[in-house]
Amino acid sequence: MAKTPANTHVVIAGAGLVGALLAIQLGRRGYKVTLCERRPDPRTNGFIGGRSINLALSCRGITALERVGLADRVLADAIRMPGRMLHDEAGNLTFQAYSSNPEDAIHSVSRGGLNVTLLEALAEYDNVVMLFEHRCVGADLDAPAIEVEITGGESKRIEADYVIGCDGAFSAVRAVMQTQNRFNYSQQYLDHGYKELTIPPASECGVDPALHNGFAMDPNALHIWPRGHYMMIALPNADRTFTCTLFWPFEGSESFDEISSESAVLPFFEKHFADAVPLMPTLIEDYTKNPIGSLVTVRCSPWHKFGNTVLLGDAAHAIVPFYGQGMNSGFEDCRVLGELIDEHDGDFGEVIREFSKRRIPNANAIADLALDNFIEMRDSVANQMFLLRKRIEHALHAIDAERYMPLYNLVSFSNMPYADAQEVGSKVVRLAQNIADAIGLESGQTMSDAELSRVVAEYISKD
Amino acid sequence: MAKTPANTHVVIAGAGLVGALLAIQLGRRGYKVTLCERRPDPRTNGFIGGRSINLALSCRGITALERVGLADRVLADAIRMPGRMLHDEAGNLTFQAYSSNPEDAIHSVSRGGLNVTLLEALAEYDNVVMLFEHRCVGADLDAPAIEVEITGGESKRIEADYVIGCDGAFSAVRAVMQTQNRFNYSQQYLDHGYKELTIPPASECGVDPALHNGFAMDPNALHIWPRGHYMMIALPNADRTFTCTLFWPFEGSESFDEISSESAVLPFFEKHFADAVPLMPTLIEDYTKNPIGSLVTVRCSPWHKFGNTVLLGDAAHAIVPFYGQGMNSGFEDCRVLGELIDEHDGDFGEVIREFSKRRIPNANAIADLALDNFIEMRDSVANQMFLLRKRIEHALHAIDAERYMPLYNLVSFSNMPYADAQEVGSKVVRLAQNIADAIGLESGQTMSDAELSRVVAEYISKD
Repeated sequence: MAKTPANTHVVIAGAGLVGALLAIQLGRRGYKVTLCERRPDPRTNGFIGGRSINLALSCRGITALERVGLADRVLADAIRMPGRMLHDEAGNLTFQAYSSNPEDAIHSVSRGGLNVTLLEALAEYDNVVMLFEHRCVGADLDAPAIEVEITGGESKRIEADYVIGCDGAFSAVRAVMQTQNRFNYSQQYLDHGYKELTIPPASECGVDPALHNGFAMDPNALHIWPRGHYMMIALPNADRTFTCTLFWPFEGSESFDEISSESAVLPFFEKHFADAVPLMPTLIEDYTKNPIGSLVTVRCSPWHKFGNTVLLGDAAHAIVPFYGQGMNSGFEDCRVLGELIDEHDGDFGEVIREFSKRRIPNANAIADLALDNFIEMRDSVANQMFLLRKRIEHALHAIDAERYMPLYNLVSFSNMPYADAQEVGSKVVRLAQNIADAIGLESGQTMSDAELSRVVAEYISKD
Repeated sequence: MAKTPANTHVVIAGAGLVGALLAIQLGRRGYKVTLCERRPDPRTNGFIGGRSINLALSCRGITALERVGLADRVLADAIRMPGRMLHDEAGNLTFQAYSSNPEDAIHSVSRGGLNVTLLEALAEYDNVVMLFEHRCVGADLDAPAIEVEITGGESKRIEADYVIGCDGAFSAVRAVMQTQNRFNYSQQYLDHGYKELTIPPASECGVDPALHNGFAMDPNALHIWPRGHYMMIALPNADRTFTCTLFWPFEGSESFDEISSESAVLPFFEKHFADAVPLMPTLIEDYTKNPIGSLVTVRCSPWHKFGNTVLLGDAAHAIVPFYGQGMNSGFEDCRVLGELIDEHDGDFGEVIREFSKRRIPNANAIADLALDNFIEMRDSVANQMFLLRKRIEHALHAIDAERYMPLYNLVSFSNMPYADAQEVGSKVVRLAQNIADAIGLESGQTMSDAELSRVVAEYISKD
């Protein structure tokens, strides 16, 4: 019998964001899909998240959602963030647009809400079976099959034509692949951890609700308190709260280790995050109660085994969150896999081989960029030369958007493969730095944007 | 009850070279040791090796053996290799001494013989229990304890005060540690694999036994057939055979993939290893029968968990074999751990924390050096500028052995920590290269060793 989608059974481990979107991609193409998820059904039980409450959706994620007709629905619930709002220690605010194009923005979305939207869309496909409280605990790469534990105790083996591991940074499917000969693998933790805190709506922290549409701060920005070797950020939620995330070293000076007692928390915050303290009535409670998360970068190669098992999303390439690309890169995986299925006329074995080959350099590029961007966010954004360079990048971009697209724009506002974006964007960074050096910091700082733009245009015309 | 060695129970997973030597180190200090090994007892059953038949023992390994009084016994069975013998495609031989000091040599030893020697020495300690056919399959890091499967089927849990994983590159103890938060881990495979072949004694391959004391080639050298992107090497065995190892790419041109049929083997060898073919009467059979091994570099950090579980040897730092330092670095682990026990007056928790901290940079250094040395062995040794630089390094060393010890000497003929050796040795390499550039290749090649030495002495006197 010829293999058609209808008689090709694909089992997906993990119905998080990537697993659910992939199931839609396969469901639409008529594949017989079984989707196994360890958590209860969030549509009926509410979302039980293990991690960040909100996420920044940008171009790559939006493009992948457009392919399955869900972008508008998701963006309707999202909050536009066209730039960063920097908070210095004195409480002064500086807004940095992400792009010279005012239409460019990243979008704060709820992880739980987005997951439910994807699962609801999936319910339309009779050829997709969703099994909740089915935790993938292993795989048989020869069959292929996955082993699942059903909440309560029973174990089950699910055979399929193809196994897809979308089971996250600690993937059970990948753990089995790791025991195979010639499987390259690395997991590297940052010396920094994170902790989530909350800023309630304006009315609950003494801010005039009229100021920011009921929010305690401007919701149309990603807020950053850059403090050199550590930082705090805050993203807005639809319920007019902000979720703040501290990124601190685990050990050493000004670390989670050092600021561990209840009595140490407030003085530290009052010194370094003074403007945030009045907005955080539950600071001490949140700080004491909430766990410290760790931040891991996972790389592996190849992503497939035997042409019948493949990894997507965090299972293949967990990255640190500092470029806001974890979900976006996972969604891009789904888009690319879908395109490859169409290109290869459904030869799934060839699809996953090609997918692995094509995606690995891009995943490595965004992993590196995300690590680099931590330094930019916590430190460089408060550096004067960095700010001048950013203004020059924007001026270049405004002069010729195609030719001088800055790295941030290429990553966040384009679908250019990450490895290419890294290469092209680095050239623009070097050019902007050369122009900044030619102008000089003091002279550049005194120029208006219009003046700077004229000087930049003159520089490149001579180039 | 105060913890003394006599009431401190240490369980060691793995009685290979490192596990056995470590057990001696602990046994001598009075610890209660349980040593679990998956293989049958090689003292009564013969050694069943999974890997390389012979190994190059050098200074670090010898020093560690001296500490337990076994160096002389081991060296008595070893074959001295004071240099490399290079075989070019035309069959011309060039001997390259490893050192300007004729006393420096590496020593070919039998893995099985050495393992038996260590286990025999261990039998003297009543406080050490050896359990063969006990395969470590897991660990409980909280207890701590290891889980073992006894050949035949039964499973057992062995609790102890401390667990030490000496269970090799695919360590089960490390696999459990890898699931712990903030455990950094990487496994990277080379694109080259290896296959072992045999050269029998002179009498079995038509060579006059009087020529090389019954060997088919000079036994007092490590033989290399450098061929650019691949190579073959051969080490002598006490039974007058040589074990040859091919290091070839898995795929591509001139690879295991390409030379896979019986009919392709001989023509290839006749073209590239012509002088070896007459010495290998079982070439086709060996090539067809013997498996292709893969070559992995394992790095992790930290090496301990909770101050009660620690990794040594390949379990902590598997490296590629091209510097002949796999066993030597593992034996050095044992020496350093022993020294730390003495320094810390038996506070084992502190010992393994300090051990992990101190050894990781050194393990990373030798891992990098071993990867670099593959290129040197298969390619650079046949490069004229490289050979001139090596002669200059030897000249520098002869002038001032302390100040200008070449990298190879620091690694193979000293106990300087690998990371320091890497740093110091790199400076000597750069100096030698500068001198080579100043002299010029052609001019250097025409100089006698005495002339070269004079020129080098003059150069550094002006430096």
